[in-house]
Amino acid sequence: MEGIAPFHVMDILARAKALEAQGRDIIHLEVGEPDFPTPEPIVRAAIRAIENGDVHYTPALGMPELRRAIAGFYQDRYGIDVPATRVALTTGASGALMLVLGAVLDAGDEILMADPGYPCNRHFAQFIDALPVRIPVGPETAFQLTLELVESHWTENTKAVLLASPSNPTGTLARDEDIRDIAALCAARGAVLIVDEIYHGLVYEGSPQTALAHSGQVVIINSFSKYFHMTGWRLGWLVAPESLMNGIERLAQNLFLAPPTPAQHAALAAFSTETQAILEERRMELKVRRNFLAPALSEMGFGLSGLPAGAFYLYADVSSFTADSFAFAEKLLEEAAVAITPGRDFGEVSPEKYVRFAYTRPLPILREAVARILKFVSA
Amino acid sequence: MEGIAPFHVMDILARAKALEAQGRDIIHLEVGEPDFPTPEPIVRAAIRAIENGDVHYTPALGMPELRRAIAGFYQDRYGIDVPATRVALTTGASGALMLVLGAVLDAGDEILMADPGYPCNRHFAQFIDALPVRIPVGPETAFQLTLELVESHWTENTKAVLLASPSNPTGTLARDEDIRDIAALCAARGAVLIVDEIYHGLVYEGSPQTALAHSGQVVIINSFSKYFHMTGWRLGWLVAPESLMNGIERLAQNLFLAPPTPAQHAALAAFSTETQAILEERRMELKVRRNFLAPALSEMGFGLSGLPAGAFYLYADVSSFTADSFAFAEKLLEEAAVAITPGRDFGEVSPEKYVRFAYTRPLPILREAVARILKFVSA
Repeated sequence: MEGIAPFHVMDILARAKALEAQGRDIIHLEVGEPDFPTPEPIVRAAIRAIENGDVHYTPALGMPELRRAIAGFYQDRYGIDVPATRVALTTGASGALMLVLGAVLDAGDEILMADPGYPCNRHFAQFIDALPVRIPVGPETAFQLTLELVESHWTENTKAVLLASPSNPTGTLARDEDIRDIAALCAARGAVLIVDEIYHGLVYEGSPQTALAHSGQVVIINSFSKYFHMTGWRLGWLVAPESLMNGIERLAQNLFLAPPTPAQHAALAAFSTETQAILEERRMELKVRRNFLAPALSEMGFGLSGLPAGAFYLYADVSSFTADSFAFAEKLLEEAAVAITPGRDFGEVSPEKYVRFAYTRPLPILREAVARILKFVSA
Repeated sequence: MEGIAPFHVMDILARAKALEAQGRDIIHLEVGEPDFPTPEPIVRAAIRAIENGDVHYTPALGMPELRRAIAGFYQDRYGIDVPATRVALTTGASGALMLVLGAVLDAGDEILMADPGYPCNRHFAQFIDALPVRIPVGPETAFQLTLELVESHWTENTKAVLLASPSNPTGTLARDEDIRDIAALCAARGAVLIVDEIYHGLVYEGSPQTALAHSGQVVIINSFSKYFHMTGWRLGWLVAPESLMNGIERLAQNLFLAPPTPAQHAALAAFSTETQAILEERRMELKVRRNFLAPALSEMGFGLSGLPAGAFYLYADVSSFTADSFAFAEKLLEEAAVAITPGRDFGEVSPEKYVRFAYTRPLPILREAVARILKFVSA
């Protein structure tokens, strides 16, 4: 338990709620949850299933028709042929990560991951007594691991490497050649490359390939929460090599029984033409927000290395304003009524230099936020 | 992974499906899932919430109003005053067990539990590198742990004891005095008593008290799956001492983010007078089934030590028919088209002597099952 740090943003959130209770109008840019409702076709599919009484346990790896639908999604979107037997539904991407790490790592094994990164990743590893090895990354590699970084941190205990593309908190993509090279290195040394593609649907430049295109040996983690706007439904998925599926299934039976059934029926409607049109419209809206917020922050003096390609986050260097990004976030909330996430939630590499902005609010609110922040940093 | 055994009933189930594909009419008495639909008021509450767009993340420990509703349930049903701050919603009882064991046990710690028992329990412990210590129990203690059994297996590494009342697979209750004494022993020695009350609503003799009535230090695990007929929704809860709640919350934030939101809204309707009337009617129906099936099996020569007080299981000694209960279950399926669960799924104590019957099918089907079994054992 000692290694499992609290989320510092919870302090910010608690203070924001207290201020709201006093009547303050707080702009929430700390929330990693899209502000869009679940698309109507998905909602209708859920209600239909619930009305039909389709709310019993499903198989541990999910409904076969949904596993096939996800396999079809890889075919349609990426041109990748992956059999449905390699796809498993999970209770959120969290469930996928738990199953994959449980199937791949023993106590004492090491998993390499980027710092900064999503904090739960290292906590999952610690939970099963594996050792998260956090590799410092910065703007020079777009906050992503490279083959060189992975090689230089490799030990005889290294059993897995975790990439996140796009990354939370930075929104940056891993390079195709790095994914390919790291996958080959892992395969050659009997380790597993896990690629978190939770935000992969939310990319605003080009059409990056899934890591599945680069190697048949990688494990993919994905989610219906972000691109598909189904956060509270708690449904994710994984794609793994056939050789891991038996172990993953046994773990899923024991640790979860099965993912939530209403969510699975809902998700069956996620790949329809109608839903995809809604999702793409929202992706465009998120791109507009990014294209507004990123240059506005840069102009004020927030350090951004380029326009991050995906997700809905900007990881901004605040060292031109402060030597303590947590105090900066607290003060921004108190004085400007804008809530953001301090860097220390994402790792140990210069967390005092960074804050994360989530553009999960509509453009007019982002404009107001920028006005407030400008006044705050100019004061 | 090696310690995580597959469910042998999956072999039975797979064979049952194959036979069904050939047109055989299989009676499923292996399924630990009630055959009743989710009660209509719960279904309506879910649909209303989904239509309203209430499908975003909730706090990690669940919606405050549902935590209060569960606290109210303890007041109304058991006369126990427990603050809502000690209640946490979880992703099924599985999620509750994961959080509790994660918060209580470190690698190498021992947890005492009855054998036979629910197989996932020991797998959860192994998953976090704790050591499940399985204490052989039999009919002489109604398959439950007693103070003496717990004391005689206690070591300096013992950090938790797990009771299940009613038990899966036996349906038997732990005695109040044993719960009280074991709780006191745990408190005195700095360990935690965890009581699985997943089937506590399904008791057919008297109105047993929750373990919360016997000690403020126990941890309770419960579920909306069984008594509330909400299996596929994946919602459970725990009640823990205040001192554990901070650790449980941090783990919940990291491992699960939050339990499924549609299920939480649905469950808000679980405690209404209207729903409770439906649930009690079904409990009576399950009692009628038990009262039919148990004596019918006894008469045929299946060994049952009394009428188990709760759950929907009968754990029957088949040693008058066979020395290999797994082969017996396989043959019963092939020749009599009745699927049951072999003892080896529940532990290492004479598993070859036992099978589990689940009375999760309506009375006419149970009658047909009894006729088939009679013909089979008389042949």
